[in-house]
Amino acid sequence: MITSTKNEQVKRVIELKKRAKTRDEEGLFVVEGSRMLRELPAERTELLYVSESYQKSKRPLPTGPPFEVVSDSVFAAMSDTKTPQGVLALVRQYAYSLDELLAAGQSALLMVLENIQDPGNLGTILRAGEGAGITGVLMSRDTADIYNPKVIRSTMGSVFRMPFLYAEDFLGTLMLLKEKGVRLYAADLSGERDYEAEDYRGASGFLIGNEGNGLRTESAALADSRIRIPMEGRVESLNAAVAASVLMFEAARQRRAVVKKGVDK
Amino acid sequence: MITSTKNEQVKRVIELKKRAKTRDEEGLFVVEGSRMLRELPAERTELLYVSESYQKSKRPLPTGPPFEVVSDSVFAAMSDTKTPQGVLALVRQYAYSLDELLAAGQSALLMVLENIQDPGNLGTILRAGEGAGITGVLMSRDTADIYNPKVIRSTMGSVFRMPFLYAEDFLGTLMLLKEKGVRLYAADLSGERDYEAEDYRGASGFLIGNEGNGLRTESAALADSRIRIPMEGRVESLNAAVAASVLMFEAARQRRAVVKKGVDK
Repeated sequence: MITSTKNEQVKRVIELKKRAKTRDEEGLFVVEGSRMLRELPAERTELLYVSESYQKSKRPLPTGPPFEVVSDSVFAAMSDTKTPQGVLALVRQYAYSLDELLAAGQSALLMVLENIQDPGNLGTILRAGEGAGITGVLMSRDTADIYNPKVIRSTMGSVFRMPFLYAEDFLGTLMLLKEKGVRLYAADLSGERDYEAEDYRGASGFLIGNEGNGLRTESAALADSRIRIPMEGRVESLNAAVAASVLMFEAARQRRAVVKKGVDK
Repeated sequence: MITSTKNEQVKRVIELKKRAKTRDEEGLFVVEGSRMLRELPAERTELLYVSESYQKSKRPLPTGPPFEVVSDSVFAAMSDTKTPQGVLALVRQYAYSLDELLAAGQSALLMVLENIQDPGNLGTILRAGEGAGITGVLMSRDTADIYNPKVIRSTMGSVFRMPFLYAEDFLGTLMLLKEKGVRLYAADLSGERDYEAEDYRGASGFLIGNEGNGLRTESAALADSRIRIPMEGRVESLNAAVAASVLMFEAARQRRAVVKKGVDK
């Protein structure tokens, strides 16, 4: 059992949680909490850390990956929650290709995120996106790190299932998407079309920009259509995850309507 | 100028931020940040506190309410943000009646929140709700305190404009709403109707339950319809603010469609 926070393994886990650079160098990320662990892909899990009391509680552990037991106080130092649940995992990072994001062909539904900064927003978009049936998430390099523990937690497990990709050349990738037949819709406060007036049943991608500044001019200019969510009252904008969700579930609604019509015939 | 954190006024502001009980006893709440201050209702503002450097910067202050200058270090102690902007206000609490929430008559669109606990969710529902055109927010007594500084901040100013009410007798108030012709729709993971199959153009209310446990059985039982947001993938539920937003903007979409039809004729 590891009983000192000066142990090299403990220091490594803390670094992996804190620093995107360390995560990328090691190709790992940290997953915490018993709920997230139920969803854990065992084949990607390198190692588990379990607190002494978790082990004594005889609660279940994922089978397969090796585990290390650490004292409760060491676990508390490794954890970034106030009431640690006593399990965390080191998981290998994903490496999806653009082709995987587009595997659904004409049914592709992508979220294209430019410089989203809030980890809670990014995680919420993945979670709501999986619920809405999106097929992948494309991000600009300056978007928050998807392996940040706060993002991981707010995905509620969707990060294990949703294909995603940071585009080295964001504008070039947008152009490539268009060549491949994906219609791009830019969420834009001054967009000329109400979002519900568009048809999202073919291959579609929603562009969502930074929380404070919106999309860059060059990115918005590449969109096939600039859409807005009509707003009542004196609200200037919606939270980025809320705006994204309204768009994704409108696409889901339109796509379900087609299926139902098909069934009715 | 106030230069000591032991000053009684400073201690009072800190108490007002921290404790719902103090806020209710004094009938006040604290609003922080220059962006929120642009939206501040001057007639409800009792007092402003301004940091020394804010005052020296000659940036604008709301006209009308009296203000006190405090040293920068005292302001930092009063503020709960890491980079305080140098202005905060003590604002008088609101006291809306149920009639005010229902003033829109057949156009009423209410959010009915039971035991929502996360301040960010509550604030986001107010902000998105104003954007979607809801006419009021009704809450159970065990919902988070709307005057919590984290709620206030995430409303982005909507709290100054949206009628809201904590119901002493939650179930009794739900029955009263129904008597007044408001159709109640319970967001329920096991609901029998897809949310888009309902018609929200008449007086409507959406019931949203606690983040972890959903609606209480007694409350869900009072709804006219239990609706669900169909979900792809392995997502069990949506974040409460996201689910609320999807429903509110579906109602807004249906209501706009009516107006457009009217114009087309």
